[in-house]
Amino acid sequence: MTKVREIDLRSDTVTQPDEPMRLAMSRAEVGDDVLDRDPTMQALEERAADMLGVDATLWVPSATMGNLVALMVHLRRGDRFIAPRGAHVLDDELGAPAWLAGGMPEAVDWGDWPGRMPVESVRQSARSGPYYTLRTTLLCLENTHNAAGGTVTPPDEHAKLVATARDVGLRVHLDGARLWHASVALEVPPAALTVGVDTVQVCLSKALGAPMGGLVGGTSTFVEEARRVRKMLGGGVRQGGIVAAAGLVALDRVQDLAKDHANARKLAKGLRDLGWEVNEPESNIVLASTPDTEATLTGLKRVGVLGVPVGGRVRFIPHRDLTTKDINEVLSRVAKLHA
Amino acid sequence: MTKVREIDLRSDTVTQPDEPMRLAMSRAEVGDDVLDRDPTMQALEERAADMLGVDATLWVPSATMGNLVALMVHLRRGDRFIAPRGAHVLDDELGAPAWLAGGMPEAVDWGDWPGRMPVESVRQSARSGPYYTLRTTLLCLENTHNAAGGTVTPPDEHAKLVATARDVGLRVHLDGARLWHASVALEVPPAALTVGVDTVQVCLSKALGAPMGGLVGGTSTFVEEARRVRKMLGGGVRQGGIVAAAGLVALDRVQDLAKDHANARKLAKGLRDLGWEVNEPESNIVLASTPDTEATLTGLKRVGVLGVPVGGRVRFIPHRDLTTKDINEVLSRVAKLHA
Amino acid sequence: MTKVREIDLRSDTVTQPDEPMRLAMSRAEVGDDVLDRDPTMQALEERAADMLGVDATLWVPSATMGNLVALMVHLRRGDRFIAPRGAHVLDDELGAPAWLAGGMPEAVDWGDWPGRMPVESVRQSARSGPYYTLRTTLLCLENTHNAAGGTVTPPDEHAKLVATARDVGLRVHLDGARLWHASVALEVPPAALTVGVDTVQVCLSKALGAPMGGLVGGTSTFVEEARRVRKMLGGGVRQGGIVAAAGLVALDRVQDLAKDHANARKLAKGLRDLGWEVNEPESNIVLASTPDTEATLTGLKRVGVLGVPVGGRVRFIPHRDLTTKDINEVLSRVAKLHA
Amino acid sequence: MTKVREIDLRSDTVTQPDEPMRLAMSRAEVGDDVLDRDPTMQALEERAADMLGVDATLWVPSATMGNLVALMVHLRRGDRFIAPRGAHVLDDELGAPAWLAGGMPEAVDWGDWPGRMPVESVRQSARSGPYYTLRTTLLCLENTHNAAGGTVTPPDEHAKLVATARDVGLRVHLDGARLWHASVALEVPPAALTVGVDTVQVCLSKALGAPMGGLVGGTSTFVEEARRVRKMLGGGVRQGGIVAAAGLVALDRVQDLAKDHANARKLAKGLRDLGWEVNEPESNIVLASTPDTEATLTGLKRVGVLGVPVGGRVRFIPHRDLTTKDINEVLSRVAKLHA
Repeated sequence: MTKVREIDLRSDTVTQPDEPMRLAMSRAEVGDDVLDRDPTMQALEERAADMLGVDATLWVPSATMGNLVALMVHLRRGDRFIAPRGAHVLDDELGAPAWLAGGMPEAVDWGDWPGRMPVESVRQSARSGPYYTLRTTLLCLENTHNAAGGTVTPPDEHAKLVATARDVGLRVHLDGARLWHASVALEVPPAALTVGVDTVQVCLSKALGAPMGGLVGGTSTFVEEARRVRKMLGGGVRQGGIVAAAGLVALDRVQDLAKDHANARKLAKGLRDLGWEVNEPESNIVLASTPDTEATLTGLKRVGVLGVPVGGRVRFIPHRDLTTKDINEVLSRVAKLHA
Repeated sequence: MTKVREIDLRSDTVTQPDEPMRLAMSRAEVGDDVLDRDPTMQALEERAADMLGVDATLWVPSATMGNLVALMVHLRRGDRFIAPRGAHVLDDELGAPAWLAGGMPEAVDWGDWPGRMPVESVRQSARSGPYYTLRTTLLCLENTHNAAGGTVTPPDEHAKLVATARDVGLRVHLDGARLWHASVALEVPPAALTVGVDTVQVCLSKALGAPMGGLVGGTSTFVEEARRVRKMLGGGVRQGGIVAAAGLVALDRVQDLAKDHANARKLAKGLRDLGWEVNEPESNIVLASTPDTEATLTGLKRVGVLGVPVGGRVRFIPHRDLTTKDINEVLSRVAKLHA
Repeated sequence: MTKVREIDLRSDTVTQPDEPMRLAMSRAEVGDDVLDRDPTMQALEERAADMLGVDATLWVPSATMGNLVALMVHLRRGDRFIAPRGAHVLDDELGAPAWLAGGMPEAVDWGDWPGRMPVESVRQSARSGPYYTLRTTLLCLENTHNAAGGTVTPPDEHAKLVATARDVGLRVHLDGARLWHASVALEVPPAALTVGVDTVQVCLSKALGAPMGGLVGGTSTFVEEARRVRKMLGGGVRQGGIVAAAGLVALDRVQDLAKDHANARKLAKGLRDLGWEVNEPESNIVLASTPDTEATLTGLKRVGVLGVPVGGRVRFIPHRDLTTKDINEVLSRVAKLHA
Repeated sequence: MTKVREIDLRSDTVTQPDEPMRLAMSRAEVGDDVLDRDPTMQALEERAADMLGVDATLWVPSATMGNLVALMVHLRRGDRFIAPRGAHVLDDELGAPAWLAGGMPEAVDWGDWPGRMPVESVRQSARSGPYYTLRTTLLCLENTHNAAGGTVTPPDEHAKLVATARDVGLRVHLDGARLWHASVALEVPPAALTVGVDTVQVCLSKALGAPMGGLVGGTSTFVEEARRVRKMLGGGVRQGGIVAAAGLVALDRVQDLAKDHANARKLAKGLRDLGWEVNEPESNIVLASTPDTEATLTGLKRVGVLGVPVGGRVRFIPHRDLTTKDINEVLSRVAKLHA
């Protein structure tokens, strides 16, 4: 019995660097980024800053470190920060925001739209009081919102949240690990989705296919302090130009995400046609509610389809290493499971 | 124009030591509690342990430090802890749980009863996963629940929460700053409300009238480690017997709280009779919803009645330094406001 | 066999509040210091500020918390602070400076005089460099220096250290747990020994005999922030006026320390006459080098004389609860040990 | 006027990946190391474990993170750790050991040999006491010792230090960022220099020429916990096999370091012949004492020779990208400076 080829829909983090990206890495010009600056890292940082509409950015080994560095710079002594329920910074960073950045998180419930916070809730969470009360100082946004199913916050909604934050004295950090997807889904440039934020983090290692790394950006002053904090965390590297070269290639591929979005819609529709309860994907994330998540995942694995459990649902992420044919194959395998 | 006597209902923390308590303090036998043990502190710690049904307790300068010490001993590296929405440990300790104890808080919404968590929510919040996921390790209870209006969790409900916590591998800390009130309201001994917890904190400086201090208790091993952590925080004192003597007097007065509870009910009923929207007090806390909290408080202050804003409502706490006549006076002043 | 009366020279922390102090406590006017301000605490804080020549001070439950609060306000993200070798803040605070204040300590070796740092060493320790290097930002002084044998830093020496710190961009915190002794030994007011510091901590619970507490002071801005940090640590208390009243009495007794200093010199001379190797006490601390510290302490304990091991030597601290006759008695017991 | 070619002796971190290393990276088999394991990272981790004589190792983006992860796993609540004066973990990690790992550092002075601690000093620094005293729990070694001039600790000396640590209850972490050099200098396998340690960190990005990364190793249990801590810090990457492939090439090149050691000796001798005061290099680090460090570095830079100031001396590190001819050129340029 031959083993069936596995189709891995667990995450877009499984994407692998392809030949052009590997070639770019093998030819990258490099330097000692701690002592001087690595020229390819610098090129990546500058290009990302342009795309994101911020003064400067800093390469980080992972999106998690990008968020952590931003929180470390923003928060002081137990400051409260707020984020939409299910945010990566709340649920997926192993407590680093509290333990390492010393911040007290609070989840803000979504309003009518999954992953989006009503401005009134932001206003209420920024309550303040006498010296002996907790101080809320930071609003964290997440666009797209992973756990909500890759939902997108459009520029006008974003602007309202930022304006409210300003009004109640909060700084704003945007976890844009999948900001590229929001940009493609909304057909606006990434910079249209960072308007007014203090800091933004983007990931290169998810759907864009770079092997590792992301960027965290903001004002030059922020990046200066972030560089110091990154060094403390052990995220300062020497000839990072090798992987930064992959990042530069990745930035050329943002528009390719449209294919993944189409595949996500196709997968969602196909599953619904098979009777599943599935979200209407706004970007590349498909969330299916099944009676028994674990049993579903086990059944799928048996036919070579990999997903992961997320908040009581099954998550699938079509990505650049999967074709539309692969999605059809997934649907055909799932159909057989039902037969 | 003579200034009206202020009736201070802001908190039971404003209670002052009376003559017998002052006398006990002035006669207290003391020692160097760091080098040896202060005999009066020791007597207080042992008596409290008996009342709470734990192996041992440790004096702390404040209830806040009691909670902090417990969290510091329980939590490691960003562990998540959960507590009912509005818990003191979430909202009223200036971020110390995150900043100093390194824990990642999550609020659990109340179920049908204000301040009480459904066991199913506790179970869900204790989700676990692979090595790269956040670990929930601690359930914090609060009885009575201050922000919910001094609501009481009875022994059977408590037992279900503790059993659920055990079932999903959580330790349990009980913030019992006002556990005495729950005990009096339910007519059960305090120890009936600590069954199965790992640690418990009680306050002596609120309604019981001691000038300062509380106790945190659990196993002897816990107290040994807590003593070390207290010293690190600067909570180790030398001749603490002076204030511990007040604590011993305070412990004699638990049953006196019944008067405060009666006064709270009287105040609530009186305000309702005047058309206010007020909770049905289960212990000593009255919460009134008014169209404009700030305006209400300002108006009350003008007639010499002091309350505080809590979560968008006005809070009054009748306490041992106020008589039933004082409550009647409050109602009469409020009535005049309406006239 | 009757048990011999123990003469406790382990520390001046063993001193007990006497009748006048107890009376003052029993009569103290108090208030809720968190919500309002406790009037007696406020009186103590203001009087101490006057004596110390700073804008304002804040009561803290212990000298350890006083130092901790100061470090927490001064230090950011791993800043290095320097202190003379053997300083309390380095060796006797259980790692709180690193763990809670996040500071990286470095001991500066003494120069010719025990407990005093050469200014050149301070200058060298304040080395700085590019963004990826450790930043030294704080100089901690200790006057008198406990582990060095209660040695005193006179105003001119103090001024040189402060000037050097300023010159290299360091802030200055003075651990003055026993600043009163330096003041008495040098016959200068305490304020003469705080010139130019940013913050100072003094203890009331050691030789001055208060049961607990100390003060940390500096600018009004510092005290405002310190009040917040104290609350986070659980050091905010309600009717602290009770113990603050003892502090006010304690501040009246600074000149009484001259007796303890005389007793220390008498004890040192007596021990030397018996052939011991002993320091020349500058204040109230006697340090004796013996071939086997543990054996010496055990032998002494057998004849009812209590000391403690400190840095390989035996430490004795004559204090207000011991008379000159007690010191004679100690010497006579030690003499018998040798007989 | 043509610009002279700069000869960069600032650090071996400036070394660049060469063609074979770039080729290996471009061909590396990769996977998602967070969800599964990246096969090339795994191969590197296993090979390093073999070479180091430990159960397992974990890839980290930098040597600094390797040390940090080890300290985070070893230390609890302000534990003191000790290290030889000038150790990287004391002076060159921006306070992360205190701020992030919560540990209280203490420098142990060198004995007769630069960079080596007398066992008696280790014993004394591990002093312990009652519950209210600081606890020393970890000894950090550094081999070779960078700031001491790349000095080497041979196996017998290492064994004595480890045995002493064990005897007084300390765990042992070895900062082996340049352990490869010690191995080559002593002509023993790296595993001969890790005997008895709990954890060890090695760097691939210094003289071995990999663009980034290192490894931290110990028991399987340690590595399991380290993997979690690395994720918290943001050091978990996805397709790290790209840079791990460079690490595998680097491990083939340990013996090449002999050339750098010879060049260091040549440079030292040459400088001494020119009248400089220079160390006798045991590995690849040359330390020169000059009357004015800054002036010397400026003068050298003018003739295209780059060094850095380290502890008041000028440091040069010959490395794999420099030939013996380059060293001759350096000496000739320096000679001209003197002419």
